[in-house]
Amino acid sequence: MNELQELRRRARDIADLNGIGGLLLWDQNTMMPPGGAGARADQFEALERILHDQLTDPGLGRVLDALEPWAASEDPDSDDVRLVAVLRRDHEKAVRVPTELAAAMSLAAAHAQQAWLEAREKNDYGHFAPSLERILELQHRYIACFDGTGEFAHPYDVLLDDYEPGLTTAEVTSLFSVLQEELVPLVSAAAAAGEDGRVFPGHYPIEGQQAFAEALLGAVGYDPEHWRLDPSVHPFARSLAHTDVRLTTRWEPDDLAMSFYSCLHEFGHGLYEAQMSPSHYRTTLADAAGLGTHESQSRLWENLIGRSKPFCEWVLPVLRKHLGGHFDAQEPSDLYRAINQVRLSLIRIEADETTYNLHIALRFELELALVEGRLSVADLPDAWNEATHRLLGLDTPSIGEGVLQDIHWGAGMIGYFPTYTIGNLMAAQLWQGLRADVPDVDDAITAGDFAPLREWLRDNIHRHGRKFDSRELLRRATGEELSVEPFLAYLEGKLLDAGLLTAPARVPRS
Amino acid sequence: MNELQELRRRARDIADLNGIGGLLLWDQNTMMPPGGAGARADQFEALERILHDQLTDPGLGRVLDALEPWAASEDPDSDDVRLVAVLRRDHEKAVRVPTELAAAMSLAAAHAQQAWLEAREKNDYGHFAPSLERILELQHRYIACFDGTGEFAHPYDVLLDDYEPGLTTAEVTSLFSVLQEELVPLVSAAAAAGEDGRVFPGHYPIEGQQAFAEALLGAVGYDPEHWRLDPSVHPFARSLAHTDVRLTTRWEPDDLAMSFYSCLHEFGHGLYEAQMSPSHYRTTLADAAGLGTHESQSRLWENLIGRSKPFCEWVLPVLRKHLGGHFDAQEPSDLYRAINQVRLSLIRIEADETTYNLHIALRFELELALVEGRLSVADLPDAWNEATHRLLGLDTPSIGEGVLQDIHWGAGMIGYFPTYTIGNLMAAQLWQGLRADVPDVDDAITAGDFAPLREWLRDNIHRHGRKFDSRELLRRATGEELSVEPFLAYLEGKLLDAGLLTAPARVPRS
Repeated sequence: MNELQELRRRARDIADLNGIGGLLLWDQNTMMPPGGAGARADQFEALERILHDQLTDPGLGRVLDALEPWAASEDPDSDDVRLVAVLRRDHEKAVRVPTELAAAMSLAAAHAQQAWLEAREKNDYGHFAPSLERILELQHRYIACFDGTGEFAHPYDVLLDDYEPGLTTAEVTSLFSVLQEELVPLVSAAAAAGEDGRVFPGHYPIEGQQAFAEALLGAVGYDPEHWRLDPSVHPFARSLAHTDVRLTTRWEPDDLAMSFYSCLHEFGHGLYEAQMSPSHYRTTLADAAGLGTHESQSRLWENLIGRSKPFCEWVLPVLRKHLGGHFDAQEPSDLYRAINQVRLSLIRIEADETTYNLHIALRFELELALVEGRLSVADLPDAWNEATHRLLGLDTPSIGEGVLQDIHWGAGMIGYFPTYTIGNLMAAQLWQGLRADVPDVDDAITAGDFAPLREWLRDNIHRHGRKFDSRELLRRATGEELSVEPFLAYLEGKLLDAGLLTAPARVPRS
Repeated sequence: MNELQELRRRARDIADLNGIGGLLLWDQNTMMPPGGAGARADQFEALERILHDQLTDPGLGRVLDALEPWAASEDPDSDDVRLVAVLRRDHEKAVRVPTELAAAMSLAAAHAQQAWLEAREKNDYGHFAPSLERILELQHRYIACFDGTGEFAHPYDVLLDDYEPGLTTAEVTSLFSVLQEELVPLVSAAAAAGEDGRVFPGHYPIEGQQAFAEALLGAVGYDPEHWRLDPSVHPFARSLAHTDVRLTTRWEPDDLAMSFYSCLHEFGHGLYEAQMSPSHYRTTLADAAGLGTHESQSRLWENLIGRSKPFCEWVLPVLRKHLGGHFDAQEPSDLYRAINQVRLSLIRIEADETTYNLHIALRFELELALVEGRLSVADLPDAWNEATHRLLGLDTPSIGEGVLQDIHWGAGMIGYFPTYTIGNLMAAQLWQGLRADVPDVDDAITAGDFAPLREWLRDNIHRHGRKFDSRELLRRATGEELSVEPFLAYLEGKLLDAGLLTAPARVPRS
């Protein structure tokens, strides 16, 4: 099979360039001197152009065509057959997009990211608006590349599909309709039952937070031989290969929750990358099924595990050891209640898991309106503030706490936000599946033994890489289709358990 | 001129990929988790293969051919004509080397670098030897690519030419013959006149060293907007663009000289990259004329400026401010004498500037013997130890202080070491030229005003990038050819001035 060897060779180059792109991105957000931003944008553009040329190469199309009869006769779940399918999809999408447009999108995103950083510092939306205009203009040109394919029912579907293959505007609209309907009263009831004030009152020296994070990450499965942790404005995870995984967090002396839960969150992303099957290394299968699945992994560690009662029992002595003070007088039940408080707040990445999806609903609503042309870039801050008031009942005192709080739009990522909610829903379903399969999960967590959890996730999700899409992975792991009920039932159950709801607030959906 | 536009487009891609390669290398030696080494080797290999494909593309040959008549009719010193010439040279060299060999060399170098690091840790030469065998085998295959071109008189010339275009084994042999003859007695006389003990006796907390380095680098021209400084095992400088310059150093509490002079040294390299003309950005002219010129810049800042009497006058109060203790009781003349001490020592990067070239002579002798097949990899440690005894009169107690002290051979860089000596010779000649052109240099240095020095270097050397080769640059800057006399006269003059020689020890060469 010379064709298969050629396909693997092509996949290897693409995978290596993606790994290199991961380094460019990681460095840009952690290490790069500010004055290097212009050159970095050029480097991204060059890399993007080369990657695009490789994906669109007619030779790739020919080798895919030549392999089609063979693939049809083989086990459809074998690695090689899936590699053919995945590369065909990438090739067919890429050939519709001119190289120059792909490069322009990459360049515009790099410039806009820098403008976003500067606009945040200056508290000046006007400094960012022209970059966002440019991003949107290019997104429209990108969408237009798929005119007439019949593949997408809505312009925004084109964007969604890049982050979560097959996800549609209609589905997302319907999911958010149910979630908003259920979450607004749940949030309202739980927020009224809780206390005011910060989750972790007090001041936590950064050295103590770092020692705690090291103990926390070490216990869940961070491996210093293969991982790094660095500070960045916006925490993120990026792997350059399954053997080189980089997490970032933000250290704030007055906000322990930021580093604590962002470390767990990014660990979940990192573990997905680290536990992909080594047999997929240097192929285009060594990638996530979709961003929904990726987010389900981060949310699982941050919330389903990290905010559970057994986790509180394990982590409280660790907190006491490294951060003392406040935690010395706490019982696990106090911690459990504190970290599950429902609090209406402005910042998505600081939001509790109950309100979180309302933040996403807001962003989905606004970016859909931008894409549909119902909202202008100039009117975006007002629309943001209005939606914040409508969904969360809050005023927005500054653009840093409002429209400029997230990097995504500045990074050219429109259609990305809904995958966070898909991830939350999947996480609840996977958690049900994991609990059904792994005996004594709670005891293992209480004992700080996270190996059985990592193994279940490796076997059911991580190792597959991009062989199956998110829905297929969910089906194989749980036997279920994507649904909102497990997530809502989980939320309500925990709020009741933690004493944050006095009585059931909702009727289970069938 | 469509062809010129096409040439510029091709040069832009090559330049961008080189910038990306700079990031891969910097990260590998500063940030990468150890377990990422295998993937990094693969990424280097992929990048190398793509770069090699671009340089050898027949389309590049065609556009160069098409531009030849135009180039012959234009100003031979114009940027575009020089770009044609430089790319033609790169293309013609690259087409002789099969893509797979270039990739194998890159892969072997990445693996050998890791083996070198591990071998140093384990103090086990055997752990590194197979990697060095592989490197040499590939270097021989590389040399064989140029058989029959008539371009190179000696196999080692092929390797030299990659680091210092046009430099020959015959010239290097002749230079080292004179240098050894003159330096061995000079070193002997000066070492006998000096005191024993370390240049900076005492213990210097790393925080103090970092504060001093910040003040030092800030004064000479380090710009935090565009530069970084990080720790690494072996200090180096690398730019990703003229706007993104990265230096590294090594902090050792018992060795202030290490961070002090490596910072100045790497600053010299960084300044060369930072002061290249922005008009060369994203072209293959945005590179050094040769490594000899590069090294002349680092040596100029480290030695000619950094170990001068006026520099001592300026820097002593800075040392006192950040590191106190030892320096409070010193006069500038004490510092001047201390930092110019001649001491026979084992480690090249810790060597004083008088003995330094004997370390290079040793490496040149050994690598020439390896390339000529007169020395085997297995016998290299013994040959190293013998030459160390012969040239420096010292025993070598461990391979970390001997054959494994430098990264170069492990990084596949054979033929590189002689450029250090070329740099030392050029630095002395350029320093004469600078002093003749810039009035009151000594006063400026005493006052901590390094701007006139930076400007002279920018105008005469840095801005040209790779437009002219090292000898042509030297000729344009000083009106002179490369020679040993200015360097030897400078050394002797300073040793006399600092009281480290009691009487002239040599007869000037005409």
